[in-house]
Amino acid sequence: MKQRISMKHLPLVFLALLLLSTARAQEIPQRRGPQVVSPQISDDNGVTFSIHSENARSVAVTGSWMGMGETLEMTKGDDGVWSAKTQALEPSMYHYNFVLDGVSILDPQNPKAMRDGRRYASTLMIPGEASEVFQVNDVPHGSITKVWYDSPTLDLTRRMYVYTPPGYEDSKEKYPVLYLLHGGGGDEDAWTSLGRANYILDNLIAEGKAKPMLVVMTNGNANQTASITDWSKEPDASMDIAPGTNRSEEDIMEGITAFPKSLVKDVVPYIEEHFRVKANSTDRAIAGLSMGCMQTQIISMTNPGMFEYIGCFSLGIHFNDPFGVISNNILIPAYDEHLETMKNKLFYVGCGKDDFVYEGVQTLRKKLDEHNFNYVYNETEGGHTWANWRTYLSDYAPRLFK
Amino acid sequence: MKQRISMKHLPLVFLALLLLSTARAQEIPQRRGPQVVSPQISDDNGVTFSIHSENARSVAVTGSWMGMGETLEMTKGDDGVWSAKTQALEPSMYHYNFVLDGVSILDPQNPKAMRDGRRYASTLMIPGEASEVFQVNDVPHGSITKVWYDSPTLDLTRRMYVYTPPGYEDSKEKYPVLYLLHGGGGDEDAWTSLGRANYILDNLIAEGKAKPMLVVMTNGNANQTASITDWSKEPDASMDIAPGTNRSEEDIMEGITAFPKSLVKDVVPYIEEHFRVKANSTDRAIAGLSMGCMQTQIISMTNPGMFEYIGCFSLGIHFNDPFGVISNNILIPAYDEHLETMKNKLFYVGCGKDDFVYEGVQTLRKKLDEHNFNYVYNETEGGHTWANWRTYLSDYAPRLFK
Repeated sequence: MKQRISMKHLPLVFLALLLLSTARAQEIPQRRGPQVVSPQISDDNGVTFSIHSENARSVAVTGSWMGMGETLEMTKGDDGVWSAKTQALEPSMYHYNFVLDGVSILDPQNPKAMRDGRRYASTLMIPGEASEVFQVNDVPHGSITKVWYDSPTLDLTRRMYVYTPPGYEDSKEKYPVLYLLHGGGGDEDAWTSLGRANYILDNLIAEGKAKPMLVVMTNGNANQTASITDWSKEPDASMDIAPGTNRSEEDIMEGITAFPKSLVKDVVPYIEEHFRVKANSTDRAIAGLSMGCMQTQIISMTNPGMFEYIGCFSLGIHFNDPFGVISNNILIPAYDEHLETMKNKLFYVGCGKDDFVYEGVQTLRKKLDEHNFNYVYNETEGGHTWANWRTYLSDYAPRLFK
Repeated sequence: MKQRISMKHLPLVFLALLLLSTARAQEIPQRRGPQVVSPQISDDNGVTFSIHSENARSVAVTGSWMGMGETLEMTKGDDGVWSAKTQALEPSMYHYNFVLDGVSILDPQNPKAMRDGRRYASTLMIPGEASEVFQVNDVPHGSITKVWYDSPTLDLTRRMYVYTPPGYEDSKEKYPVLYLLHGGGGDEDAWTSLGRANYILDNLIAEGKAKPMLVVMTNGNANQTASITDWSKEPDASMDIAPGTNRSEEDIMEGITAFPKSLVKDVVPYIEEHFRVKANSTDRAIAGLSMGCMQTQIISMTNPGMFEYIGCFSLGIHFNDPFGVISNNILIPAYDEHLETMKNKLFYVGCGKDDFVYEGVQTLRKKLDEHNFNYVYNETEGGHTWANWRTYLSDYAPRLFK
């Protein structure tokens, strides 16, 4: 027997094993109909989507490269295959769904899909220079550990993801830590599945652009133990109360500050006790997107000196319900109290030109300017999208711990 | 501020944050149409599935509780909501799809779904005594680490999942290891997402039924670096070669034994070097389902003495192409050579009465009997299903390392 395995003969036998073990099984049924390939990326980066359905009355595509509410209608060919081609897309990772007779579905031919909270979408990678930073490149990969920790603050045992950089297992070195918070509707899975945070760090570290660091990705929904795939019971919640419902300022404060408190009291101590990390402010960074940016502001401004590096992606200071309560009672007083004396090494603000939170981000910038507080501002094209959040992380991480 | 957070006011503010951050965003679109709840489990464990589509011509359900090729037609109500109710289902975890105008889709109202290789399905948990062992119960949870390792044997850097039991991080103890192999079409994600191996171990360990152990879940497809969600390039393979294609016995042998060799030469040494484990045969167990059971047989019988505990789930000795080559050239000679002198502590065989591999499993049993080799046989109802593989793991793990 040869020592080195030739790869060229693997596929056929593995296909045979695959067929044996699934074709006659009772598990997920095989797809039916003519052979369709979808998506197909042309040389010009236009993408053709296809789906077979003899009976459908209408099929359309919605995707994260489109404006809000836009769809691309698909047209039916004689073979019952519906298809549509997009304009050229910029290199990035996108997600999309088909809308089949009014029902939002995955592209049945695309084996790559992802979950964003309670929703599923197919994913599409347009290769190119801008995508390189979150590709699975041929570089050393860090590990991701899904770990459960006690949160006395929230009275729950909860799960988080911890990225440890390449070499962590084999060294005795202590590392700095980035606490990275997701947005509304997301969970502890979001920054790796949609955000590709682990591959971004792998690539930046391999290029020498970012320092090796741990990245701690928590679940920012204070009533959840873990992502929905790993619940056995529904969270203690009655989600039928609309946002406009009357409630006291105290209740809003308590609700919105619950997770920030638990991060400070439960998460950081757990990480500093169980992982080989440097436990001081110059080796702690925090960043969050949208809801996670509000949490980042609450955490960093009510615990000044805890994090030397603060990253605010796609949120600012807002006054619409229930944000006004937080802005007026927590954020503005804290900024006014601490900004003049805070000597943070980095305050980073990222926002898209078309983002619906744009005005609030400008309000935050005015508050920082008012106190002559130094910060980095990265204004990008586009809106409230993972494409932007990957960009901000790729720009933020290299600035940390230097 | 109160030290303890009251949970009762969380939902409204979190809903508000969620709405802010998603409703106007360009990300995955919200669902449309009337409010539909699906699935709904009745007191009798019958399940009602529902989906809204004014335009669909036909909708059906296929699920892992059904026989092969069976579907349950859904009927349309005046409100455009299609629905169907199953008979009472046994407590277990199932997966299912809707077939909407001929297209296999997820249940759009069910936020719990899973991936099996290249396919996606919604999941359904019927609670009950039989499901308790794989629920997320209020017990200490082990961690799962996704780790990348070098495989010189396959000339790839590859990913595997490593379950470490509760307390691993805080102790200095060394643990035994179970190597747990998935089936055809699956990958390193399968034993946790479909198999719930981590929760099974959590629960068995908490009850004192299983010893604390590591569980190593590899990717058994020798040409893959990781599961499809974490590729940037397609594996080096031309999957268009049909199983019946002419090929030499040497090629078949080389292809099918590639992963088994890499497990012995690359995986076990990596684990024993990087994790706090006991590195001897009495503290090594192996088990696999279907394709993974073929690999388990190849590994354990061509490396006698390496694993004291061997688990064979839903495969045996088969002679259909390409298995005959392996059975005749590797398995039967190895069984005949080693069974009389092997002193394994456990050889475990699990098979469903309706499994299409049933005959091959009986051939394996005859071979073991022929050599008066002692083994445990667990014949269950049903077929080639994850319901059975969870059952076998729950029955096998308590027998290890004792």
